[in-house]
Amino acid sequence: KRIVLLPGDGIGKEVINSAQDVLNAIAEEFNHSFTFETHEIGGAAIDLYGTPLPETTVDACKQADAVLLGAVGGPKWDNNPSHLRPERGLLGIRKALDLFANLRPIKGFKNLLHASPLKEEVVAGSDLLIVRELTGGIYFGTPSERRDNGQTVVDTLAYTRKEIERIVDKAFQAAQGRSGHLTSVDKANVLESSKMWREIVEEKKAQYPDVVVEHVLVDAAAMKLITNPTKFDVIVTENMFGDILSDEASVLTGSLGMLASASLSEDGVGLYEPVHGSAPDIAGKGIANPSAMILSAALMLRYSFQLNDEATLIEDAVQSVLDSGFHTADLHIPEGRQVGTEEMTRLIVDYIK
Amino acid sequence: KRIVLLPGDGIGKEVINSAQDVLNAIAEEFNHSFTFETHEIGGAAIDLYGTPLPETTVDACKQADAVLLGAVGGPKWDNNPSHLRPERGLLGIRKALDLFANLRPIKGFKNLLHASPLKEEVVAGSDLLIVRELTGGIYFGTPSERRDNGQTVVDTLAYTRKEIERIVDKAFQAAQGRSGHLTSVDKANVLESSKMWREIVEEKKAQYPDVVVEHVLVDAAAMKLITNPTKFDVIVTENMFGDILSDEASVLTGSLGMLASASLSEDGVGLYEPVHGSAPDIAGKGIANPSAMILSAALMLRYSFQLNDEATLIEDAVQSVLDSGFHTADLHIPEGRQVGTEEMTRLIVDYIK
Ligand SMILES: CC(C)[C@H](C(=O)O)[C@@H](O)C(=O)O
Ligand SMILES: CC(C)[C@H](C(=O)O)[C@@H](O)C(=O)O
Repeated sequence: KRIVLLPGDGIGKEVINSAQDVLNAIAEEFNHSFTFETHEIGGAAIDLYGTPLPETTVDACKQADAVLLGAVGGPKWDNNPSHLRPERGLLGIRKALDLFANLRPIKGFKNLLHASPLKEEVVAGSDLLIVRELTGGIYFGTPSERRDNGQTVVDTLAYTRKEIERIVDKAFQAAQGRSGHLTSVDKANVLESSKMWREIVEEKKAQYPDVVVEHVLVDAAAMKLITNPTKFDVIVTENMFGDILSDEASVLTGSLGMLASASLSEDGVGLYEPVHGSAPDIAGKGIANPSAMILSAALMLRYSFQLNDEATLIEDAVQSVLDSGFHTADLHIPEGRQVGTEEMTRLIVDYIK
Repeated sequence: KRIVLLPGDGIGKEVINSAQDVLNAIAEEFNHSFTFETHEIGGAAIDLYGTPLPETTVDACKQADAVLLGAVGGPKWDNNPSHLRPERGLLGIRKALDLFANLRPIKGFKNLLHASPLKEEVVAGSDLLIVRELTGGIYFGTPSERRDNGQTVVDTLAYTRKEIERIVDKAFQAAQGRSGHLTSVDKANVLESSKMWREIVEEKKAQYPDVVVEHVLVDAAAMKLITNPTKFDVIVTENMFGDILSDEASVLTGSLGMLASASLSEDGVGLYEPVHGSAPDIAGKGIANPSAMILSAALMLRYSFQLNDEATLIEDAVQSVLDSGFHTADLHIPEGRQVGTEEMTRLIVDYIK
């Protein structure tokens, strides 16, 4: 299996090594062969090649079986013009690989729940999967421009029926593999695109009789995520709503540093990345939490390579290391022991072996 | 002063009476004269006149000094075609009166904070004001339509420079009257409209040197509202982001039934309404919490009539009744006493007299 590594910026460069170490351990234990190729994206690519997404990076990803991404961004490039900003690389690779389905599983770790901003009785037991459409909507619709000499501005939220159908199918399928409950989030009382979205979800229902569907308006969903996070199983929504709600959901369990994500295309390559960012403030210090990156590698094994046992072993390893009280500086475990990126990785690798 | 009452649907009809009782008490105590005129909006208007926003309602509001709105909506009209849905009345009156500035103060009530989904140490002391643009953006932009025989759909997020400037001014002014901190929320790394929004905020900064400004991306804001609600003072944002974030924020303090809002036009009439909805499940039972409606009337006195002492007296009255342990069924106060809508109103009126 050919894996492209895109470390990106900041702590991305550090945690990607951890993922590679863990995958090497898995390869050894299970007799798999993974080859790695590293390419630039984001700020690192701007510095080296003058663009956040070089052609060579896109080509390498297209030929790979899967892509692992660290994180992009940092203050160094914050004042660049928009086509020279790190996040353009991220948006570009999503579009280039047609990564239309962003999957974000959010589940609390028992011994980290105490760090949640929510009361333990509110958040305990929550286990949700956000399925966000990632290559359409207002992120890519045109026109997106100033008009009348800068006196007006427009952005366009555009979807094709096919784009909505494929993400809705993905979400129904995900719900079938979980508790069979799907919440479709839209703003059908205002947006025409949401009305069409809701119609398509209703049409698809017949194909998935084992899934219970509900429609929730985005504003109500933003409330319910906080007041009743345990009431959700799978949530499906369009790109911008998904951006907001998935970030909102990511802080509920109090352990952002543990959250992984998968971005999938129809049959091609998948891209896996931690939910956290490049954390420039702690970059280079060796204290970054590698868990989200390592768990992203586990998602890769499961979704792109169908290596379910291997994925589960990585997840068990992370859980077990936490259970033993080891944690990085971003977390706190009462009577636990704080370790750096390398030691955390070593502990996880040791468990696997 | 001529006040138009728009009870709307569900508990709107009940709580609007409470507001009227309280305003009558204020008029008596302070020797003011308020006249009231009641008109239909939402489902009630659909039933009577076949439209959620009759011309007579619009005309009456235009001639009034201020408008109090209960709430609109209910299951009875949920399957109506979109032009015959109660919320069209709400969107219509906002546009007709040019109510571009929606102000939502959110502050916890001390003896209700225990009901917050957040830990008390996270939410205690939070006191924020969300200033949401209410008549532009993707709510009203055109085109908003199906195309290609229903194969594609678009909505349009549109703003004029002037629309952004006036809401940003409003927010700066609000920040001057509070702690002098303004958070502008946008998605400038993706949307052209957000880039223009951010530029305008930067331009306006010079006019308000006493206000500290920060820009936060909408996804980050959705996280920070939960992890650090006390870090905000005034938040300003466009219509759809404001819809999502203000609802998210409204559940933080655990007392949605206490939250009021004001929707203001440039120099004309203002509309005041509770944040909660029409609550069809408890309508007609006499148990609805009138506090948010009564506090909306207080906002009316302050913003539309510059009657600051009168507004403060109402707010003190509500606080004092709570402090005495009285509460409606939606709330819980340890060792308190549960009362109905009428008794709650009477207690507040008694305090005022
Ligand atoms: C960096 C930004 C463009 C991106 C997005 O909005 O999609 C990020 O917030 C994300 O969620 O991956
Ligand atoms: C009813 C709906 C159209 C409305 C909105 O989205 O503005 C409501 O959610 C609100 O916030 O007042």
